[in-house]
Amino acid sequence: MQIGILGAGQLGRMMALAGLPLGQRFTLLDPGGAPSAGIGEILTGSDDTTLEDFIARVDVVTYEFEHLPVALLERIEQVKPVYPSSRAIAVCQHRAREKALFSKLDIPTPEYRLVDSAEALEAAARELGCPVVAKSTTEGYDGKGQAVLRAPEQAHDAWQSINHDQLVVEAFVDFVREVSLIAVRGRDGAVRTYPITENQHEEGILRYSVAPLPDVDAELQATADGYIQKLLDELDYVGVLSLELFQTRDGRLLANEMAPRVHNSGHWTMNGAFTSQFESHLRAIAGLPLGDTSARGLTCMVNVIGEEGDSAALLALEGVHLHRYGKAPRAGRKLAHINVVADDYATLLQRARAVTALLPGAFEITMAWDGV
Amino acid sequence: MQIGILGAGQLGRMMALAGLPLGQRFTLLDPGGAPSAGIGEILTGSDDTTLEDFIARVDVVTYEFEHLPVALLERIEQVKPVYPSSRAIAVCQHRAREKALFSKLDIPTPEYRLVDSAEALEAAARELGCPVVAKSTTEGYDGKGQAVLRAPEQAHDAWQSINHDQLVVEAFVDFVREVSLIAVRGRDGAVRTYPITENQHEEGILRYSVAPLPDVDAELQATADGYIQKLLDELDYVGVLSLELFQTRDGRLLANEMAPRVHNSGHWTMNGAFTSQFESHLRAIAGLPLGDTSARGLTCMVNVIGEEGDSAALLALEGVHLHRYGKAPRAGRKLAHINVVADDYATLLQRARAVTALLPGAFEITMAWDGV
Repeated sequence: MQIGILGAGQLGRMMALAGLPLGQRFTLLDPGGAPSAGIGEILTGSDDTTLEDFIARVDVVTYEFEHLPVALLERIEQVKPVYPSSRAIAVCQHRAREKALFSKLDIPTPEYRLVDSAEALEAAARELGCPVVAKSTTEGYDGKGQAVLRAPEQAHDAWQSINHDQLVVEAFVDFVREVSLIAVRGRDGAVRTYPITENQHEEGILRYSVAPLPDVDAELQATADGYIQKLLDELDYVGVLSLELFQTRDGRLLANEMAPRVHNSGHWTMNGAFTSQFESHLRAIAGLPLGDTSARGLTCMVNVIGEEGDSAALLALEGVHLHRYGKAPRAGRKLAHINVVADDYATLLQRARAVTALLPGAFEITMAWDGV
Repeated sequence: MQIGILGAGQLGRMMALAGLPLGQRFTLLDPGGAPSAGIGEILTGSDDTTLEDFIARVDVVTYEFEHLPVALLERIEQVKPVYPSSRAIAVCQHRAREKALFSKLDIPTPEYRLVDSAEALEAAARELGCPVVAKSTTEGYDGKGQAVLRAPEQAHDAWQSINHDQLVVEAFVDFVREVSLIAVRGRDGAVRTYPITENQHEEGILRYSVAPLPDVDAELQATADGYIQKLLDELDYVGVLSLELFQTRDGRLLANEMAPRVHNSGHWTMNGAFTSQFESHLRAIAGLPLGDTSARGLTCMVNVIGEEGDSAALLALEGVHLHRYGKAPRAGRKLAHINVVADDYATLLQRARAVTALLPGAFEITMAWDGV
């Protein structure tokens, strides 16, 4: 089976690495002209001829980035299957539609308002009570297109800096942590979920993830599983879906946003689960049976951002799996990730800290659970 | 670092899959014109221009097949580093030199004779006592270039069928099983070994491997480790070396042969060790620190030979990792392997048998250790 991927960055690369052993072949279409995947057949260009060529070469289409024109996917769907579907992406790429779907399915979210002017933003900030977070309804990712308002008077500056015609304004959530849930649904409707993952962000970019977690019980996992199952079924979803949630001080889960694709917070599965999120996604879209998504040991995934550390020094550490993306360094750019594995949390923490000590841009790994 | 691989089959493919995440890039040279690797930059041709082009593109050269002209490697060594070296391959590709090295290093082997005529073969068969195994000193693999003599009178037929100018004749060993040891040595001389692996062959072709083994104690492992350490140091070896041994009824290990490369009996490491043999080889030849070679759970590697089973049915089984090679089916050809993983031997056996039940060419998986 020839898999077509829209986008040729690290997610496409890791999909191809996971799919070749399944007998799949890959054609990656990079519209921007700077493909980094370094694997598979790579087409570049955003013209019609390139697109037609791409469609003709593949059996099924998927993507590594959800900020795609829905009309493009609808056009491809007339000729070849697209997973996840244009309908799924239309919801997931638009925060207002996403929130509406969460509400429709009784999935709790932070309180929010939709605004389409600086004045409405200010009013919403007053109503919800600052601080609030304002986010563009479309196109934002990795902290882009967002602003925190500490007072309603900051509304005009925030409106101008985000520079978008519609925003979602969210009440501040007193969360203890951000978590995510990665799930996969097959063409036959079968669903599997990975263990809940804890994520630490810095300036809106994921710094590290830990999974599985010692303080997630079966009930919390079942609650999260129930939420994502409803989303998957409602969207008749095929492939990997990622759901980011806040865990509040009183133990509730509030849905933040979702991404219709393999996700950075699922990279730990490459060395920490029996089947990686990439293989799960490919099995799903190819109509193959899903694999075992349970965890294998404990993993801390550390992102390498902006500048790479010394590979040799990193590989000399115990329990380290290095995943480089073949990209040139640039401030804020994800260049690689490291999966640190261990059998107990104390060792995991110690090993993860040894890794971060070797990475540029010091940051602290904390795993502040009881008993660790 | 650009890695050059002589050969573009499944071993080259799996090396490239392991090396891309390390930031390595690959150029594969297929002299025969039927590359199946499906990854990396692939050159085909055995002419001088292609070879020069290949050498110019890469930083370091390795190979997936040891039946290469030593002069070819010596020529490349004048321009770029070759790992393992031409000296290592000169020994490993020649059974007589290999046996001489084993003897020099006090590594026990089955009793053997070198013969260069049908008459000498017959005499050796009488002297050693039939059955004996006759093998061509060069070029044999996967059971090719070999014959079993059940009586000295079969010497003339065997000589003709093998059709080679020098043979090694080995006394029959009353072995309980065939095992192998995969080790890796870095450019700095650091050595790591994998757990001893049990291998079951059928018509000279590996059918399945199991590792780690419940009845291998630290002493047996240390004995095997000691043998391979001597070989690695003597050859100033860099990369993965595979040593096949017989385990006799009285518990001794007798060296059979070695291969200067990643080995089919090490494929289990892809899902059953912290660092796969492919990553180990690449770390070694790139001068990077070696990784953890200890086992992670229990693995049974099952070869898929001649014809592929139904991928969907195989992937529906528990504990299955499928590794297809992208090759067209042909009798006796290795097309894929399946790594079956489990946490206890009873489950491993049950899962492995479920796999073989779905593969063409029925064969029985036996793991006849005490307590299983």
